[in-house]
Amino acid sequence: MWFVMCVADIALIGLAVMGQNLILNMNDHGFVVCAYNRTVSKVHDFLRNEAKSTKVIGAESLEDMVSKLKSPRRVILLVKAGQAVDDFIDKLVPLLQPGDIIIDGGNSEYRDTTRRCQSLKAKGLLFVGSGVSGGEEGARHGPSLMPGGHKEAWPHIKDIFQSIAAKVGTGESCCDWVGDEGAGHFVKMVHNGIEYGDMQCYFCSELDSFLIEITANILKYRDTDGTHLLPKIRDSAGQKGTGKWTAISALEYGIPVTLIGEAVFARCLSSLKDERVLASKSLKGPQGAKFTGDKDQFLEDIRKALYASKIISYAQGFMLLRQAAKEFGWSLNYGAIALMWRGGCIIRSVFLGKIKEAFDRDSELQNLLLDGFFTNAVQDCQASWRRVVSTGVELGIPMPSFTTALSFYDGYRHAMLPANLLQAQRDYFGAHTYELLSNPGHFIHTNWTGHGGNVSSTSYNA
Amino acid sequence: MWFVMCVADIALIGLAVMGQNLILNMNDHGFVVCAYNRTVSKVHDFLRNEAKSTKVIGAESLEDMVSKLKSPRRVILLVKAGQAVDDFIDKLVPLLQPGDIIIDGGNSEYRDTTRRCQSLKAKGLLFVGSGVSGGEEGARHGPSLMPGGHKEAWPHIKDIFQSIAAKVGTGESCCDWVGDEGAGHFVKMVHNGIEYGDMQCYFCSELDSFLIEITANILKYRDTDGTHLLPKIRDSAGQKGTGKWTAISALEYGIPVTLIGEAVFARCLSSLKDERVLASKSLKGPQGAKFTGDKDQFLEDIRKALYASKIISYAQGFMLLRQAAKEFGWSLNYGAIALMWRGGCIIRSVFLGKIKEAFDRDSELQNLLLDGFFTNAVQDCQASWRRVVSTGVELGIPMPSFTTALSFYDGYRHAMLPANLLQAQRDYFGAHTYELLSNPGHFIHTNWTGHGGNVSSTSYNA
Repeated sequence: MWFVMCVADIALIGLAVMGQNLILNMNDHGFVVCAYNRTVSKVHDFLRNEAKSTKVIGAESLEDMVSKLKSPRRVILLVKAGQAVDDFIDKLVPLLQPGDIIIDGGNSEYRDTTRRCQSLKAKGLLFVGSGVSGGEEGARHGPSLMPGGHKEAWPHIKDIFQSIAAKVGTGESCCDWVGDEGAGHFVKMVHNGIEYGDMQCYFCSELDSFLIEITANILKYRDTDGTHLLPKIRDSAGQKGTGKWTAISALEYGIPVTLIGEAVFARCLSSLKDERVLASKSLKGPQGAKFTGDKDQFLEDIRKALYASKIISYAQGFMLLRQAAKEFGWSLNYGAIALMWRGGCIIRSVFLGKIKEAFDRDSELQNLLLDGFFTNAVQDCQASWRRVVSTGVELGIPMPSFTTALSFYDGYRHAMLPANLLQAQRDYFGAHTYELLSNPGHFIHTNWTGHGGNVSSTSYNA
Repeated sequence: MWFVMCVADIALIGLAVMGQNLILNMNDHGFVVCAYNRTVSKVHDFLRNEAKSTKVIGAESLEDMVSKLKSPRRVILLVKAGQAVDDFIDKLVPLLQPGDIIIDGGNSEYRDTTRRCQSLKAKGLLFVGSGVSGGEEGARHGPSLMPGGHKEAWPHIKDIFQSIAAKVGTGESCCDWVGDEGAGHFVKMVHNGIEYGDMQCYFCSELDSFLIEITANILKYRDTDGTHLLPKIRDSAGQKGTGKWTAISALEYGIPVTLIGEAVFARCLSSLKDERVLASKSLKGPQGAKFTGDKDQFLEDIRKALYASKIISYAQGFMLLRQAAKEFGWSLNYGAIALMWRGGCIIRSVFLGKIKEAFDRDSELQNLLLDGFFTNAVQDCQASWRRVVSTGVELGIPMPSFTTALSFYDGYRHAMLPANLLQAQRDYFGAHTYELLSNPGHFIHTNWTGHGGNVSSTSYNA
């Protein structure tokens, strides 16, 4: 017929595996989705195959896509983070009406999302940057969704988002409004950073989590020739950046998110494969070291070391969220964030329910480690944790996540650290001044050498 | 008289302690320096006091300053990094002639220096971004200078720079041309990062270095009332950013500079003083743990642990320099850099002579740890290093630098790491594909679940 009916509830641009599965997920929940892809042949393939006999419709162009949308128009972008997102936004703006909604479901940098919120507000459009976690399985059957940006958009997308998101417990949806500007993508970034840490931590473990479950499946998986596939896989870990961004944000905002930092660096080290092969020929480990303890006991020790390290990693992640909320004036609901991560996403675990409970007990909780449950949990794991780390140290087995988590714990629980020596050194060589314990906030300079002068530094940075 | 003679060899803007001392240093070496400061009263104070009875002259304004300079005019900025540098450059440009030289001696971010090189080249001016290390003492009696930028400027400043810089061995100057654009400030940034690591490592030690020397002086230093000053100093370490920038660059360029990363995070943790005091009340350490070994033997172990950790830190620092050289097409002379750090600067130590020798042996050395001297040195320290770290772990004493350095060593010397599991996990949940050991460079996806689909991810980032 010569006119087009506006039948689609929402459009999705970007038909890679995540986009396809999100569309099928929305379709399962009764929403009519219009699928579009820059390479239009992908739309046809998708309709012919994966979306066969569904209510999904396709579009031949952006104009065609927009013409098929109910108002307010809702368009989800699931394209590569960066320029591609801006390009599509620029193409969409002239086709949309005030009040229409653009949702970026990719892994955009949170600052870009904040920038896009501002520029689209000026054009009368609503913008949402939503973290989407759960991988292809999650996207298909229930992801964790972390939307943030223009809150006016929330009432118009809440129904779709909360119905397709994962459910936990008594049907609570793993999706809630996160906060203004780039808050959704920031929370997703920290989520991914925590995921890096979790992945770096994994040895065998009984912890009830998705990563543990797929790890078990991977260990069991056999290649077509019947042999195990894992040993044949090259040990150079890739990364797409969000773990890196988390570590960089931690450095920028001065929060010691050490476990994620070590996890990212561990991937960097793994990718220096050729150099490691070379180094392995000349750099020797401990001579004659051999594990002599009880293997079952040690497996239990490893389980507890993992649990304690995981608690540290999450404590650090929430420390970073708290600092970001301060920096940007976001009011983040930490309990809701824990719930969003509770199911659907890649770091989902029963454990996150405990975190939600901690914030339910005290929404102003300064640090997870200060909640009674986690204080006791770490306490209970401590001896095992120390045995595992010192055994690894003696046997020459690198356990960067376990060791850095333990260093953090031992530093965090010390009221007094040797940083007073650092301050004295900085004042000695750089005249950076220091505070006395007796008079915090008041900075003084000592002429340590007797001839260094009493002028304190204002330009030199050490 | 009504006209002004051009008598000054060079001008310096910014009369904080570093600026004042650099001026006096240049004056000692027979150069006539014109001193200027935005708050002109500081110029008068300086001439009346510190610069009394020297050849130093002052300026009342930038115009006045420029009018007193020989051609090509050489102006050193020693002001706060950031906007202040751009502001002074903007004010200087209209007052200078083509071929005149602006030198930024502050701790500017290397990208800013690259940007300023480009914009000033367009205006026919020469720009040099120079790292200056050594603190107030170094500035006064011989700093380490790391100039980079427009090489055409080098012949005009080489004489001044190399005469005021520190000297080592048979009078070799701790100053040489580093490279194009921001190379000088990048090298200084890594230097400062290494300094963070060194400072974080320090326990008692016999290592012949400046930091060890001042640490001893600090430990001995008594307050006016005769008691030791150190215990009264607040243990919240400050930082001005260059260590942080080093860690961020390491993350950006994918180089595992873990020791500096941990050192920066250790400062962040130290600054959470109030939270630590709170945590110390509920988070307990190992129960009944007590050091029982031989104290003298353990001191020797600590010395070796420090030496090994320091080798790791420098190896990581040079890994980062090598990667930056690749990223920016800089040809860096690693031996010369080690020499520049050999004396004058804050990380100066005999140790750096060994690094220079390693690069003299092999200018293409891929990693310090692969040089025979350092391979053996680490080997010799290994047993002690492991004893110290496991003792710290058992006693609950945080030693983040020692432990992360050891984790790196144990990871670096393993030809095979569990990163194949990470790759399998990423392909399992995110369809990120992986390589087979048998076929590197060729990325494949496995449908692990049997129902995840065979479409690989192009937009989703984990």
